[in-house]
Amino acid sequence: MEVQKSITMKDVARVAGVSVGTVSRVINNESGIKESTLQKVHAAIKELNYIPDVYARGMKKNRTETVALIIPTVWHPFFGEFAFHVEVELSKRNYKLLLCNISGPKREMDYLTMLQQNKVDGIIAITYSPIDDYLSSNIPFVSIDRTYENKEIACVSSDNQAGAELAADILIERGGSQFAFIGGHNKTINETKKRRIYFEKRIREAGYPCYILDLEEPYDDFTEQVEEFLKTHPQIDAIFTINDFAALDTLSILEKLGRRVPEDVQVVGYDGVQMAEERKIFLSTIRQPLEEMAKEAVACLVDIIEKKERPLQTILPISYVEGKTTKRSK
Amino acid sequence: MEVQKSITMKDVARVAGVSVGTVSRVINNESGIKESTLQKVHAAIKELNYIPDVYARGMKKNRTETVALIIPTVWHPFFGEFAFHVEVELSKRNYKLLLCNISGPKREMDYLTMLQQNKVDGIIAITYSPIDDYLSSNIPFVSIDRTYENKEIACVSSDNQAGAELAADILIERGGSQFAFIGGHNKTINETKKRRIYFEKRIREAGYPCYILDLEEPYDDFTEQVEEFLKTHPQIDAIFTINDFAALDTLSILEKLGRRVPEDVQVVGYDGVQMAEERKIFLSTIRQPLEEMAKEAVACLVDIIEKKERPLQTILPISYVEGKTTKRSK
Repeated sequence: MEVQKSITMKDVARVAGVSVGTVSRVINNESGIKESTLQKVHAAIKELNYIPDVYARGMKKNRTETVALIIPTVWHPFFGEFAFHVEVELSKRNYKLLLCNISGPKREMDYLTMLQQNKVDGIIAITYSPIDDYLSSNIPFVSIDRTYENKEIACVSSDNQAGAELAADILIERGGSQFAFIGGHNKTINETKKRRIYFEKRIREAGYPCYILDLEEPYDDFTEQVEEFLKTHPQIDAIFTINDFAALDTLSILEKLGRRVPEDVQVVGYDGVQMAEERKIFLSTIRQPLEEMAKEAVACLVDIIEKKERPLQTILPISYVEGKTTKRSK
Repeated sequence: MEVQKSITMKDVARVAGVSVGTVSRVINNESGIKESTLQKVHAAIKELNYIPDVYARGMKKNRTETVALIIPTVWHPFFGEFAFHVEVELSKRNYKLLLCNISGPKREMDYLTMLQQNKVDGIIAITYSPIDDYLSSNIPFVSIDRTYENKEIACVSSDNQAGAELAADILIERGGSQFAFIGGHNKTINETKKRRIYFEKRIREAGYPCYILDLEEPYDDFTEQVEEFLKTHPQIDAIFTINDFAALDTLSILEKLGRRVPEDVQVVGYDGVQMAEERKIFLSTIRQPLEEMAKEAVACLVDIIEKKERPLQTILPISYVEGKTTKRSK
């Protein structure tokens, strides 16, 4: 589904046996078109593998003023907060938000198809599904925390390297001596992998051991593996996890094993999830600047829609949130 | 903005000095209409207070297949879970979800206007804003937990009376003797007020005292008032709260006051919030059947859109979730 620059609306009109104006009306999803005409045009579009040129499209006035947000699930405090800020930012610019919870790769495709058919003006996506083949460069698509190989796709993320290094520095400063990283990863190229890489690097450079539990997704026995890992390495006293939920799971296992937090083992998570705007959780964690990420993603997407120049990658600063799972600073 | 049955598209066409077909195209938001024509038609619509007849509209084929969900904020485990299920249900029926976090009454109005202009096919709303005057009967609008006076607006809720009575029964059965309700309310007619009414009734009928802290919204000193209330009535040993967040706040105050939970004081919340699908919280609570409520709201809305008969109010059963803030059953 790469953009076929040589195929134009004229070609579609010729193959369908209709006027260019009719093709345009079909592509713009206008009403009042005969079912038989619709079918002919759609057949021609499919036959030619025609994709409306996004640059040409940007010149048109009849935008939908609708942006799709693709996230794994809105029933999650990280994605829920992100969706909240994205909707607020879009509203300020008179865009509406279409929400899409992913239940399979087909779902992303539905929205990419809507984008190609001009039914949405752009997409902001947090997804680790293998959709690379269906993306083309420079489309109004902003990716969060993930880059795509050989594709010029805008990406907004928090500074995962700085976050991982800060977690290491905090745990060293609070007296850790036997460190561990607990998390998981998948096969896509994504920014979150830096959390393990730069934590481990920082710890080893400081002369400490760093035990690693880095499972490949999908896994459904996470807590069992964490328990086994912590039993195998009972000396571990300072843990950094890939995200806050992994930290909460780790805390449950530590409680089960009779280890006190933070006295025996300190734990730092990543994300900074809050159940709701006014409800901080008790975890010490690296907080991603979700409001700023949402603002940047929306600003970036709107610039692409409006054909303005944008840097391809934006990295935003993280911060440390002091909770109850680390010792007080000396 | 009541439906004016006597005003038709013909009247709008006459006042605007255009054809009925043009009025129809404007109402259906079609493209390619001259700006001056648009202005004339909109002025006529406004002058006549014309609202497209929802029954007539339902006969048309060019639906947007889009439904707006209006909630206070998606960054909240209750609304986030509800939004998740609503989107999944709508997807099954090939509808898309437009998400709207409310920041003021103007926001609901935006979506009501979109509904009137056929830019969305229907609305599902959780809102306590004073929008009564802007609703008309029988529009494709499904309200959650709230009914509207003198308007035939479909409402889906959980069984608040049964939930309140179950909370009372549980706390009595687990040995409570000095009961309290802690919560807040606002001036709209809504189902959640039943939580206090039927809890208090059940407790008193069983012959026990029931202390009440029922603040009127908006309030910003909730925790201070709870602290004062609990200090004034130190004998309280069994508390039911209006929702889970009020329960969490109450637990913080009890900890501050040195009261042990559940040994000294038992607490039961309402909602059954979970940070995410797989993450239960530690609170004993009355859980609303959010997935079923979402399914019912979507089914109800689609029936209204498709002109099928629906009961005006649907009440779904609640359940008790055993957490760590109540004593074990005897």
